Amino acid sequence: MAKSKYEYVKEFETDDRMLRNVYVLVRIDGKGFHKFSQTHDFAKPNDVRGINLMNHAARCVMHELDDILLAFGESDEYSFLFRKSTDLYQRRESKIVSTVVSLFTSAYVYYWNDYFTDLKRPLYPPVFDGRAVLYPSEVEVKDYFAWRQADTHINNLFNTSFWALVEEGGLTPKAAEARLCGTDSKDKNEMLFTEFNTNYSKLPAMYRKGSVLLREQILKDEDKDAIIPTLPETLPGSKSAKVVPTSDTATTVPGLQSGPDPISGSVSEAPSGQSSPISIDSPIVSQETIMQEGSSTSSSEGKKRSIDANEAERHDAEEGPAAKKEAPAFKRMKKGVVIDHIDIIGEKFWTGRGAYILAPEKKKKLRP
Amino acid sequence: MAKSKYEYVKEFETDDRMLRNVYVLVRIDGKGFHKFSQTHDFAKPNDVRGINLMNHAARCVMHELDDILLAFGESDEYSFLFRKSTDLYQRRESKIVSTVVSLFTSAYVYYWNDYFTDLKRPLYPPVFDGRAVLYPSEVEVKDYFAWRQADTHINNLFNTSFWALVEEGGLTPKAAEARLCGTDSKDKNEMLFTEFNTNYSKLPAMYRKGSVLLREQILKDEDKDAIIPTLPETLPGSKSAKVVPTSDTATTVPGLQSGPDPISGSVSEAPSGQSSPISIDSPIVSQETIMQEGSSTSSSEGKKRSIDANEAERHDAEEGPAAKKEAPAFKRMKKGVVIDHIDIIGEKFWTGRGAYILAPEKKKKLRP
Amino acid sequence: MAKSKYEYVKEFETDDRMLRNVYVLVRIDGKGFHKFSQTHDFAKPNDVRGINLMNHAARCVMHELDDILLAFGESDEYSFLFRKSTDLYQRRESKIVSTVVSLFTSAYVYYWNDYFTDLKRPLYPPVFDGRAVLYPSEVEVKDYFAWRQADTHINNLFNTSFWALVEEGGLTPKAAEARLCGTDSKDKNEMLFTEFNTNYSKLPAMYRKGSVLLREQILKDEDKDAIIPTLPETLPGSKSAKVVPTSDTATTVPGLQSGPDPISGSVSEAPSGQSSPISIDSPIVSQETIMQEGSSTSSSEGKKRSIDANEAERHDAEEGPAAKKEAPAFKRMKKGVVIDHIDIIGEKFWTGRGAYILAPEKKKKLRP
Amino acid sequence: MAKSKYEYVKEFETDDRMLRNVYVLVRIDGKGFHKFSQTHDFAKPNDVRGINLMNHAARCVMHELDDILLAFGESDEYSFLFRKSTDLYQRRESKIVSTVVSLFTSAYVYYWNDYFTDLKRPLYPPVFDGRAVLYPSEVEVKDYFAWRQADTHINNLFNTSFWALVEEGGLTPKAAEARLCGTDSKDKNEMLFTEFNTNYSKLPAMYRKGSVLLREQILKDEDKDAIIPTLPETLPGSKSAKVVPTSDTATTVPGLQSGPDPISGSVSEAPSGQSSPISIDSPIVSQETIMQEGSSTSSSEGKKRSIDANEAERHDAEEGPAAKKEAPAFKRMKKGVVIDHIDIIGEKFWTGRGAYILAPEKKKKLRP
Repeated sequence: MAKSKYEYVKEFETDDRMLRNVYVLVRIDGKGFHKFSQTHDFAKPNDVRGINLMNHAARCVMHELDDILLAFGESDEYSFLFRKSTDLYQRRESKIVSTVVSLFTSAYVYYWNDYFTDLKRPLYPPVFDGRAVLYPSEVEVKDYFAWRQADTHINNLFNTSFWALVEEGGLTPKAAEARLCGTDSKDKNEMLFTEFNTNYSKLPAMYRKGSVLLREQILKDEDKDAIIPTLPETLPGSKSAKVVPTSDTATTVPGLQSGPDPISGSVSEAPSGQSSPISIDSPIVSQETIMQEGSSTSSSEGKKRSIDANEAERHDAEEGPAAKKEAPAFKRMKKGVVIDHIDIIGEKFWTGRGAYILAPEKKKKLRP
Repeated sequence: MAKSKYEYVKEFETDDRMLRNVYVLVRIDGKGFHKFSQTHDFAKPNDVRGINLMNHAARCVMHELDDILLAFGESDEYSFLFRKSTDLYQRRESKIVSTVVSLFTSAYVYYWNDYFTDLKRPLYPPVFDGRAVLYPSEVEVKDYFAWRQADTHINNLFNTSFWALVEEGGLTPKAAEARLCGTDSKDKNEMLFTEFNTNYSKLPAMYRKGSVLLREQILKDEDKDAIIPTLPETLPGSKSAKVVPTSDTATTVPGLQSGPDPISGSVSEAPSGQSSPISIDSPIVSQETIMQEGSSTSSSEGKKRSIDANEAERHDAEEGPAAKKEAPAFKRMKKGVVIDHIDIIGEKFWTGRGAYILAPEKKKKLRP
Repeated sequence: MAKSKYEYVKEFETDDRMLRNVYVLVRIDGKGFHKFSQTHDFAKPNDVRGINLMNHAARCVMHELDDILLAFGESDEYSFLFRKSTDLYQRRESKIVSTVVSLFTSAYVYYWNDYFTDLKRPLYPPVFDGRAVLYPSEVEVKDYFAWRQADTHINNLFNTSFWALVEEGGLTPKAAEARLCGTDSKDKNEMLFTEFNTNYSKLPAMYRKGSVLLREQILKDEDKDAIIPTLPETLPGSKSAKVVPTSDTATTVPGLQSGPDPISGSVSEAPSGQSSPISIDSPIVSQETIMQEGSSTSSSEGKKRSIDANEAERHDAEEGPAAKKEAPAFKRMKKGVVIDHIDIIGEKFWTGRGAYILAPEKKKKLRP
Repeated sequence: MAKSKYEYVKEFETDDRMLRNVYVLVRIDGKGFHKFSQTHDFAKPNDVRGINLMNHAARCVMHELDDILLAFGESDEYSFLFRKSTDLYQRRESKIVSTVVSLFTSAYVYYWNDYFTDLKRPLYPPVFDGRAVLYPSEVEVKDYFAWRQADTHINNLFNTSFWALVEEGGLTPKAAEARLCGTDSKDKNEMLFTEFNTNYSKLPAMYRKGSVLLREQILKDEDKDAIIPTLPETLPGSKSAKVVPTSDTATTVPGLQSGPDPISGSVSEAPSGQSSPISIDSPIVSQETIMQEGSSTSSSEGKKRSIDANEAERHDAEEGPAAKKEAPAFKRMKKGVVIDHIDIIGEKFWTGRGAYILAPEKKKKLRP
């Protein structure tokens, strides 16, 4: 077959390998998610199912791609930070960006029904796009994430105020926007407190601070009864190894840790303190459940569902023989990926739980 | 909020707009699809469900992105050709590539259960990657698609021979490979014919030639009773164009598998209206179902399935009130996208049905 | 020596090969030439020595780099068009751009004293920068050169008017600028004619139209007495093979062809009609001399000088034994490069003398 | 004039700004310098005139472009390191590379006759090409220069041995190459010592180590009588810093060739003031002349030559009235650029004289 005659067209492909030894940041964004969230009746200003699904999809990306050190999500966007020395796909930009976007999209559609339990699949296929940005130094990496979290703060405070005025205050969207025009953070906080009896700082951290995905080392299977988080700083509640409360609201909202399962919307039976953010050997472990209380949109059907270690079995039961082969979704589950909703603006994070992210890599990485 | 302080990190983003006035080709590939097809028991050498799902996902991409002129799929890859003058996302490479990959992935997972009816969703989320290549001239565009179709020919003939030896001949994979080593096309054809009573050229064109997605113009709504395809050549069955072939109709056209080979140029014996490649006003119109019966791997369940204009309604019925809102999946359905399995090697295609693809664009496009 | 230990740094180099099969345009610009021309007392609005030196340097670039099809110069800039199929330095952008810029700069300094005969070398080293632009189609190539020549027209008409007001009209620069503010081409032409007795259209074409460098085939050495230009259209005066008048002013300015040598400034002894633009076997052949008459800045010293085939010998005489080895400056002198000052806006050029430039290349170039 | 009609061609220009906050390294190379050096009878293995001219051209580049921190030259190549934060030409790659190459080429031709005093200009215009490479971290920058200097060591030892065998030993080039085949550094050192009475380590450092161009701060004009170099270590001879060494002074420092080896760190015996690497207030200050005498190829004419502050005056005298206007070649002469021939392999350089190069930049640079 005259294959070789045509093969020259391959020579039009260009080499898009990215500069070595700089951080690679891939950010994805939902396309047309304003419409998508309206079509699917997302709760305003935050839909806990939607956020949890985003977080879950992001975690799938991190499970698949070991070189991602950190991820941060807010609204319909997610940022993934790759280690400086990553040689994933020889650092080819298109390959990396398209793989992250495809993984994320695939997981978002795949797990949709686990979060939006009353709809088998979305009403139409959602789409994300992505891009890579290179950051040479630690300063820029910190500032990048600070930039995104500052954005979260600003947007969420605005949205919270806006929807309070619309949904509780009865204003038209136009009137609400006019009312907020020219106000600063203090004004909005004040308004929420006096007019809507809302202490903004008590709202779930997941809404106010977005979601941070971290890799935290876990012990081997045989040691799993003695989980000790390898965090550089002692966190509140870490004495009983299995409990690591994280969000700042945790201590003030006692119901949270025993609260409703974000996936099923049901009230969790779990004793308080057991919603450990520490990933053990379960394929997918999450802290996200603590947010549920703050959500106004959880469905109330009683059936408990969990996206957890028992997932494989459960699917078996549901889907019959064909599902027998169902294997854990991703292969490298041993490296724990945990979700938290904490400040990444400021040094505290980077010298604390995030210290591993910017820690110097071994020299052999620099001189391959 | 100290937003501006961090915003400088945006300046690290680079401008990746691609050269103007050249064809943009985006090719996507399944990641780890050898394993994926094994895990899901794909029929060998071709799984008609898998191919049809690929084709459907590709069609979704073309429905969303008007500037795609042509697509070609084989195995786990698909190529999309954008018009020279496209200004989609200002020709930003990452944006275009990631959007195509995300759209394709999303549709693949979304429509999975419509093709793999015995499995609600894949056993794990599938992933694709993608890249863009620029082609300045018509010659390269033709040769690009010739290259991919030549690849299809070579691979499919090999795979057909290999699996005949293994599944029917009882050879081990190793022995089958040894047996085929050093053989040319003629040898393989001969072997299939004498040993396995298989006339390779009579196998479904979809397997031998891959899938070609074309845009074919349709008239406006008010004229839809008088559909006149704007094709340079009259195609079999185009007279009554409103018939949407499904697997049902396929069974009534026994001549199909040995019939209207688009490559040979022979006149089809098919009754008019039953194998029309002409897309009408249905959101999703396809010729693919005609392959279903001809495939040795189609499930034998009698249940009628159709990926067609009735899909929306069907889902309504299945999914209850929540699905009431279900809208057509993509918005720009007016431009008909049809699938065929024809020769795109050689001039005939490019002066015939594909003539619109390389037709000169209006000058204003070149001098914006 | 521990060489290998460090060699990894080479891997930070990126592949900057430009897309194949598109025109490569390299444009160079003088850096700070406003100051450079002031420092060297360039005549205003045009300094014929400066223009001729630019043209000579450009010709050196074309002599060295066979794949340049066409060049156009005006003011302190020059554009070089490479053939689509060029594989010079594997199309590496930095290599091509830097080589063109270096060649040009080197020739500019090297030949300075041949044009500025009263100054051994410039008062400081002049600098040029450069960039490459890709043009996929013939339309853009034509429009690119039209763009540059339109720029020449506009700038030269303005400058001619401005300096007439300043040098002849006695206005201050500020007043001259104010006077010209808001005027169109017609106004400026009118002003030049009525106030300064200048028919703008009679000014030398080199000033009004810039300089076009063309490759014109010449016969082999043995045939040099029977020079026949291989132009697609018969040009005025081409009957006597050695005469090819080109600029539109040529026919109306009889003294031009026998005019002063632009380099030496002396009056040429050559019989009219012999300043053929056809390059024969001389290393450097030029039409530029015909412009001299229109220049107000030629020095009047009687010594005849020529940058021609005799250059090598002359240098021998001047520079003593060391120069004995002096070889022709560039190696591929056989392909004649001629300079003309003609319209490249409009189709006439591209179907006439420039027809070779956009002529289709042989197929093997497209399918290497 | 229909300018706007064509201006769209500008949109084909691409944005080639390089990643921010990484080191930019521009390396230039002579094109065809094997032939160039043969044509001009360069001494083998090293031609001191050629090296000094290279160094002078490099210094001109550094004088023009303030953001170059360090340069290193060997043979026909030169590397220029720009500070991380440089915003020269908005970091546009073509602009930066072409400017460096043009500046270097221009200076090389311009100053040719000052170094090759018996030839007014080269026999043909020399050409250089260039490219940019990005280095994110200090480690790579150090290793880059170590890589180039290791190359210098290897090449010079080989060339010295080769030419000893050919010119003194009477071997043919082929025989010399065969003789050296398979030898290591020790073998070559031994051979040079026993057979040619040459102690390789006593050969001029400029040959063995290449040339390092450093920026060393000098005080303001009013303080120039109290020059205090801002170097972290005291250098030999730096006490009376106003002395500009020339070939004259070189002859008075017999110890030089075996003397102040900057690599060994030994204390120089050189009389103070006579081999100072400190740049004072002269436009062009250099240490290079000290090599002249030590070179086996220096011309033996007794005529004193100096590339120094008196250059402008000297040219006046030579070139008559026209040269009156002769200004200092480059404008920013205040920042002293000095040349030395020292070890840049190893930490000593980077913590000593080179410490300023990798010193952290002010924060405002990182957050513009």
